[in-house]
Amino acid sequence: MDDIVSPLALIDEDKCRRNIRHMIKKAREANVSFRPHFKTHQSHAIGRWFRDAGTEKIAVSSLSMAEYFAQDNWQDIMVAFPVNIREVNKINDLASRLRLGILISDADILDALEEKLVNFVDFYLKIDVGSHRTGFEPGDKAQMEKVLQKVSGNPKLRFKGFVAHAGHTYHITSLNDVQKIFIKGSEALAELAEYFRKDYPGIIASWGDTPTCSLMNEFPGIDEIRPGNFVFYDFMQYHLASCDWDHIAMVVATPVVARHQQRNEIVLYGGAVHLSKDSIEIDDKIIYGEVVRLVDKGWEPFPKPIYVNRLSQEHGIFYCPDEYWEEFLPGTLVGVVPVHSCLAADLLKNYYEITDNVFLNI
Amino acid sequence: MDDIVSPLALIDEDKCRRNIRHMIKKAREANVSFRPHFKTHQSHAIGRWFRDAGTEKIAVSSLSMAEYFAQDNWQDIMVAFPVNIREVNKINDLASRLRLGILISDADILDALEEKLVNFVDFYLKIDVGSHRTGFEPGDKAQMEKVLQKVSGNPKLRFKGFVAHAGHTYHITSLNDVQKIFIKGSEALAELAEYFRKDYPGIIASWGDTPTCSLMNEFPGIDEIRPGNFVFYDFMQYHLASCDWDHIAMVVATPVVARHQQRNEIVLYGGAVHLSKDSIEIDDKIIYGEVVRLVDKGWEPFPKPIYVNRLSQEHGIFYCPDEYWEEFLPGTLVGVVPVHSCLAADLLKNYYEITDNVFLNI
Repeated sequence: MDDIVSPLALIDEDKCRRNIRHMIKKAREANVSFRPHFKTHQSHAIGRWFRDAGTEKIAVSSLSMAEYFAQDNWQDIMVAFPVNIREVNKINDLASRLRLGILISDADILDALEEKLVNFVDFYLKIDVGSHRTGFEPGDKAQMEKVLQKVSGNPKLRFKGFVAHAGHTYHITSLNDVQKIFIKGSEALAELAEYFRKDYPGIIASWGDTPTCSLMNEFPGIDEIRPGNFVFYDFMQYHLASCDWDHIAMVVATPVVARHQQRNEIVLYGGAVHLSKDSIEIDDKIIYGEVVRLVDKGWEPFPKPIYVNRLSQEHGIFYCPDEYWEEFLPGTLVGVVPVHSCLAADLLKNYYEITDNVFLNI
Repeated sequence: MDDIVSPLALIDEDKCRRNIRHMIKKAREANVSFRPHFKTHQSHAIGRWFRDAGTEKIAVSSLSMAEYFAQDNWQDIMVAFPVNIREVNKINDLASRLRLGILISDADILDALEEKLVNFVDFYLKIDVGSHRTGFEPGDKAQMEKVLQKVSGNPKLRFKGFVAHAGHTYHITSLNDVQKIFIKGSEALAELAEYFRKDYPGIIASWGDTPTCSLMNEFPGIDEIRPGNFVFYDFMQYHLASCDWDHIAMVVATPVVARHQQRNEIVLYGGAVHLSKDSIEIDDKIIYGEVVRLVDKGWEPFPKPIYVNRLSQEHGIFYCPDEYWEEFLPGTLVGVVPVHSCLAADLLKNYYEITDNVFLNI
């Protein structure tokens, strides 16, 4: 660890691989297929851990990410983001090389898409199961039928099914409420798939989000799950009880740079450009991550939890109880479990694997 | 603009250069020297616009940034962040090549610094003028004297003065309150400089932060100013009245990807990985930026302001009044004035200059 001089994402390969195996086993036992979302790690190396465990199809959240994973020979990629018609050249290029899935979330895109699409793609209708981010309302079959009729004669667009992401589970801490969201949303999705299957045999219902996929064991009516964050988990997922502490597979290593004993505060070289400004509120306090002790090949929480309370561009600040004060001499490397590992990973770009002490080849 | 297919930082060179000239003129008239903070743009190209206007010394917020600007031959760089002793090799390397300033914010760092420092550096004492991020309390002269005595025999460490950054001005919307913060903080800083000048002739009082440097015209007792954000400004600075609308020199170009008329919402390809999650609260609503119309060689606000209300990793969502609905067809490129241009620029990395329609060589 002496070689780590500035903020860096530490990951525990064993925990990642265990998280991956666990989710694959769950999918198999629940008889749903598995299309993990790779926006969390954005790494060829970590993608290969999935491949080692049998994964063949993935989801990503941008066409650039699809291009990146295509370079590592992923051959079945869903871009789980509404079609950005300005990037149609990327769609055409990717579709010429691999099985590409795109999301239609708005009928207004169809004219331009039909005009500019050169190669064959799968398309899914994005369904809004309650997060109100994007997608067709489940009850709006008329609109969906209009879309499907419009493209029915187009051999380049194959209707593949319905996609939902229950983003509102990220704001819920009760298992019971997550179950309710899943049941309501998955029933709507399954009903749509069944209704349209008479005309489009083989279409699927695909379901995302780490809280649901972590907390539920059965996925009735669902054909495919697309969790992403679970490979690392993070402080938010731990707070939502989507994972145990021991499942968290990534922390951000940050050096202590200054201490202010008069207010028990410690300053880390680790700010918004390393952890992101994503936060969570606990007991009316904003939290940007949990500070952990780095130990041999791992990390452990402090018995009295310590949270990063403030962030600016490069500084992170936390309140340190007296009993831990002497552990945080300037220059000490500490860990921070980020609130949102996807954003921290996107910012930090590199990974250092702590069991073998190696930088991963992203 | 047809070549812009995904989120990109657009900048207006004329506005940037005007902001730079304006701040340089203000510094000259106020008889303070000018050491702009380059953490905002992190760009060789934009750094040269400062050089064109006569700037010779700069501040940055990390040693990596110092290395980056050293590559473009900046010869006088202050790293305005507490010494990170784990990066002492970078300090030694930079100090061998240029005039390097470092910040001491904690006496505990001195032993390690003295032991490992090879080359000559300027050092400043960081003073906490009320933001309580880091630094010595202005009243704690005893501690400062201890530091200065400890290093007084060390020819590699030259005491250069006091540095303050009034980060708490970023939470204030009244000119009167900003003035109060400046007067209180600058008097404390000036008093320290005067007190220690008897033993250390030539030491300076250096003051940062864009709101103060934008709003004040005189800086009594201050020898140097270090604003950074003013080169672009942003929605937060506009909200704080640090700048006029016309001074904002950067927007993020984002394509519309979907619309949901039943709730008047529009989805942009532009999320937390492009704008950052930095936000501001207006009328009890969280805002991630202001949506603007891109016009020939520029942008303009909508008469009824439109704000980005929600962000996830790649999606941005805003409420669109009926009268503008037809402007936002999927595929349309719109602008977003980010809440915090420093973080958006850090995320987007590239700049597209809209007057000459060229990508800047960062």
